[in-house]
Amino acid sequence: MTFTQDHLLGIEHLHPVEITTILDLAQDYVGLNRSAEKHGRALEGMTQINMFFENSTRTQASFELAGKRLGADVMNMAMAHSSLKKGETLIDTALTLNAMHPDLLVVRHGNSGAVDLLAQKVNCAVLNAGDGKHEHPTQALLDALTIRRAKGRLHRLTVAICGDIAHSRVARSNLILLGKMENRVRLVGPGTLMPKGVEDFGVEVFDDMKAGLEGADVVMMLRLQRERMDGGFVPSEREYFHRFGLDAEKLAYAKPDAIVMHPGPMNRGVEIDGAIADDINRSVIQEQVEMGVAVRMAAMDLLAQNLRRRRERDRLRSISDE
Amino acid sequence: MTFTQDHLLGIEHLHPVEITTILDLAQDYVGLNRSAEKHGRALEGMTQINMFFENSTRTQASFELAGKRLGADVMNMAMAHSSLKKGETLIDTALTLNAMHPDLLVVRHGNSGAVDLLAQKVNCAVLNAGDGKHEHPTQALLDALTIRRAKGRLHRLTVAICGDIAHSRVARSNLILLGKMENRVRLVGPGTLMPKGVEDFGVEVFDDMKAGLEGADVVMMLRLQRERMDGGFVPSEREYFHRFGLDAEKLAYAKPDAIVMHPGPMNRGVEIDGAIADDINRSVIQEQVEMGVAVRMAAMDLLAQNLRRRRERDRLRSISDE
Amino acid sequence: MTFTQDHLLGIEHLHPVEITTILDLAQDYVGLNRSAEKHGRALEGMTQINMFFENSTRTQASFELAGKRLGADVMNMAMAHSSLKKGETLIDTALTLNAMHPDLLVVRHGNSGAVDLLAQKVNCAVLNAGDGKHEHPTQALLDALTIRRAKGRLHRLTVAICGDIAHSRVARSNLILLGKMENRVRLVGPGTLMPKGVEDFGVEVFDDMKAGLEGADVVMMLRLQRERMDGGFVPSEREYFHRFGLDAEKLAYAKPDAIVMHPGPMNRGVEIDGAIADDINRSVIQEQVEMGVAVRMAAMDLLAQNLRRRRERDRLRSISDE
Repeated sequence: MTFTQDHLLGIEHLHPVEITTILDLAQDYVGLNRSAEKHGRALEGMTQINMFFENSTRTQASFELAGKRLGADVMNMAMAHSSLKKGETLIDTALTLNAMHPDLLVVRHGNSGAVDLLAQKVNCAVLNAGDGKHEHPTQALLDALTIRRAKGRLHRLTVAICGDIAHSRVARSNLILLGKMENRVRLVGPGTLMPKGVEDFGVEVFDDMKAGLEGADVVMMLRLQRERMDGGFVPSEREYFHRFGLDAEKLAYAKPDAIVMHPGPMNRGVEIDGAIADDINRSVIQEQVEMGVAVRMAAMDLLAQNLRRRRERDRLRSISDE
Repeated sequence: MTFTQDHLLGIEHLHPVEITTILDLAQDYVGLNRSAEKHGRALEGMTQINMFFENSTRTQASFELAGKRLGADVMNMAMAHSSLKKGETLIDTALTLNAMHPDLLVVRHGNSGAVDLLAQKVNCAVLNAGDGKHEHPTQALLDALTIRRAKGRLHRLTVAICGDIAHSRVARSNLILLGKMENRVRLVGPGTLMPKGVEDFGVEVFDDMKAGLEGADVVMMLRLQRERMDGGFVPSEREYFHRFGLDAEKLAYAKPDAIVMHPGPMNRGVEIDGAIADDINRSVIQEQVEMGVAVRMAAMDLLAQNLRRRRERDRLRSISDE
Repeated sequence: MTFTQDHLLGIEHLHPVEITTILDLAQDYVGLNRSAEKHGRALEGMTQINMFFENSTRTQASFELAGKRLGADVMNMAMAHSSLKKGETLIDTALTLNAMHPDLLVVRHGNSGAVDLLAQKVNCAVLNAGDGKHEHPTQALLDALTIRRAKGRLHRLTVAICGDIAHSRVARSNLILLGKMENRVRLVGPGTLMPKGVEDFGVEVFDDMKAGLEGADVVMMLRLQRERMDGGFVPSEREYFHRFGLDAEKLAYAKPDAIVMHPGPMNRGVEIDGAIADDINRSVIQEQVEMGVAVRMAAMDLLAQNLRRRRERDRLRSISDE
């Protein structure tokens, strides 16, 4: 087992061995979550604070359950209604929270880089639950675990990530992770929703679904993020579905055993046909949610172990200094 | 002890013996709640999710306390602010939550039947915390326990349910329960707030309080649900109180030892005179709240026992299939 | 150890020995909070309800963490969205909650005296988390602990409380506490933000910062509470900072080792210069937050001990009455 991180800020900081370590431990937690006695003790005595500057019922719930099931004292802070509105800066908020001695701080923020900044100011382990268009590492990890369970491996797969790439931290974290594990990643979507310079990541870019899905092992659909499109081109839902929505006809171009993924919440009839989403032979969308809780338990468990080790080392050093 | 249910969706599904089983266990929990060490272990290791699509501070608090006191990991989801607004359907939300492996799912929803629908899609025990104008089973159970404690029995009593019957799932669940336990139920209220066809339930209908309360053992007042009256007749509060509000003069027609109930929150001076509500010799309104926590603990405990038994049976079967 | 209170409603009810008792126990909890295993058992089996009629992310979080770390079942009630809006009175809400048998009730309310009123209606221990312009006792206690740790004592100090005194329950609770512990308190601020009759508390009043800070051991800045200034004089931020904001020039009049405090959230550049707030040699603002959790743990622990003792006494009496 190798995991040397103090924080989980992004996939870009993780070594492939560390990714495998998280997924292996998460695999164990899948079993715990399916049992009747789903309460463990890995985080017992620890305090977890969830600090969501953007609302996300689903991701927050996943982290909250993960922490509670591992025995942490978990506190949610609805930052939208908080003292930030009274003129306090992000740094002041971070320092205030830090003074309450959390052990794990789970942060979602609308600005890319805000979570990294915050991690520099606190003494605890920070988990990025999504920052702007930057990273959403636990989403990429849960996708990876879902793929590994369905395909039996997480390398030499062809993965098509389709749709609104430009506004998606999910796409970004996924393509970094899939690249590190030596998969072939394709980005499929309209040119207006494709970020510039994305070819530098070693991916192939398509603006045609059939060509992009040709021979794919995994078809990963993204949510059309209309709320993030300030100004710019906003396609009509009907036209978007016609060209980029996943339906049986387009899916036929992928491998016969290709799996279909979506991070949720889905816009049925916009980026995905409802019948495909519900097809239990192809869709692993519910399993993604299940893996989400397991992956977050694993990540927090590993970070907590490192935190305990670091504190014990500091304690011994301070004794030997006396 | 007999309780064979997988869910608690409505009183209509319960056998009288099951009602008695819940009330007997709840009676034990009243003692626990009154003690200093009010934390039990019946739900230890289990996850309870409260999913309230309609706000209800009081009912949600009662379920939350019930679960926490029995040792469950409890999570509240404020569905009003959730991804449903992003276009996700109720079924998708249910499947998403189900994938997180809750054991107990407590649901309030504005549409009649929504909770039943949801229960068909998930693997855990579902408790209906109120759906549209349909059922609110834990309210009827807590009312039943309150009556049984005050009157020493829960049969052959004359119970007058008074006020806004048409918009009340509380009234509906109560009249089903009281009928099953062989009580005489009267519905008292203006014709405009009386649902059609209610006589089929074997109840007597009155539009005069004095006649309706004559000789009653229990006077159960309902909240005037102005927020549910879309269009239609909305009475003035003053006129409503004059004709249907419970005051000393009207209460004098009931039995001398009749008790007064209200599900809360009360509109003092609208459906009930404040002095009656505060009369500790007649009003059991605070006791109803107390019984609410106990009844919810009992219901969740019994459902959890059945869930454990079912899972163990499934496990043994899957072993013998191998 | 001496602590005879049933509630913590205000500093005015506390004997100096009781203040010392709270601070001594809080000092122990500082150590627990800094350790990796920060979960204790003093409130195990007990139910804590946080009832905030005014939003306060920071104070509510501090009480929530304090209770969870001591093993209580903690429930937050967002009263702004509650049934009070449906016409229920504060007393009805209190009685409803009381019927759920909480052991500790933490209340913030916009009206002075509302928490005292509520405490008369319930059977549990009530902690005032701020009521109108009246008291905020845990804030004064955390300030006291911060001062005692920085200065080595909590008596014969010169403490300048500066800014918007008129709208501040923080100022009020602090001046009562500091007076009881035999310190010299100065109030510094514009006449329009100085409450009438404040001289009766035995304090000195200044409308000039330099004169007010002359020789002070502690400089306690207050937040400019624009949201509480209904009508009346509202100074411009720039002008306010010029005359009453704490900057290096004004701070130079205090003792060379004077500490700087602020209850947060800060308006940087309004009541305090950011550089002063961040100066780790002078500012103890983060330590105040840390002491907040510890002081609330201590207060709840002591109240819970008294509650257990009172209940045991009542139980023995009821047995001997039989």
